[in-house]
Amino acid sequence: MSDAFHRDCPARMVLDHVTSRWAVLVLTAIGGGPLRFHELRTKIEGISEKMLSQTLRTLVRDGFVRRTVTPSTPPQVSYGLTALGEGITEPLQALSDWIRDHAGDILTAQAVYERETA
Amino acid sequence: MSDAFHRDCPARMVLDHVTSRWAVLVLTAIGGGPLRFHELRTKIEGISEKMLSQTLRTLVRDGFVRRTVTPSTPPQVSYGLTALGEGITEPLQALSDWIRDHAGDILTAQAVYERETA
Repeated sequence: MSDAFHRDCPARMVLDHVTSRWAVLVLTAIGGGPLRFHELRTKIEGISEKMLSQTLRTLVRDGFVRRTVTPSTPPQVSYGLTALGEGITEPLQALSDWIRDHAGDILTAQAVYERETA
Repeated sequence: MSDAFHRDCPARMVLDHVTSRWAVLVLTAIGGGPLRFHELRTKIEGISEKMLSQTLRTLVRDGFVRRTVTPSTPPQVSYGLTALGEGITEPLQALSDWIRDHAGDILTAQAVYERETA
């Protein structure tokens, strides 16, 4: 990770991409299997159409997500994880699990901070 | 992590905080031991004074970072990890390591994408 301390390191750019709030949620959402655009929008509360499009484009570009078009009428587009996407889901999921397991401690810390700085 | 799909879930807020680019870099930087403000600014290339202040304030508020004032002349302020901060550094480090180890694959995917969409 030491590389990411340097301004022009590729690791910093990738870190920016995959640690954006929406990217984490999209990767986690399609970890359970490919989803269509409107399914993702429904699952991830509060994401705008524009943000979802941008996030998917970045994740496809980085090689984490595959866009598949099924030639039906109308054509169906779905988004699923590539092998690379499956690989990064593991450490992302570990991070998410840690946060969920410690949410109580964090909320307590915030309450103490608010009281002490009030 | 399913909670974070919901708009008002605390996990989503914490996810936002710890997965900001700067938060990851600050937590990783002080993982090696407490640092002073100017040391952090030097270590993390490209972070502005304002962004570093904001990031540290959020991390102190969430209970990940402890601000210690040594009563010397002039007083010295340093920032180190709390037990909670040490806890989250582990999954963050695993994620960072994964990105570093796969940076080549990601850069290849980007080159393919640029060629195919050009």
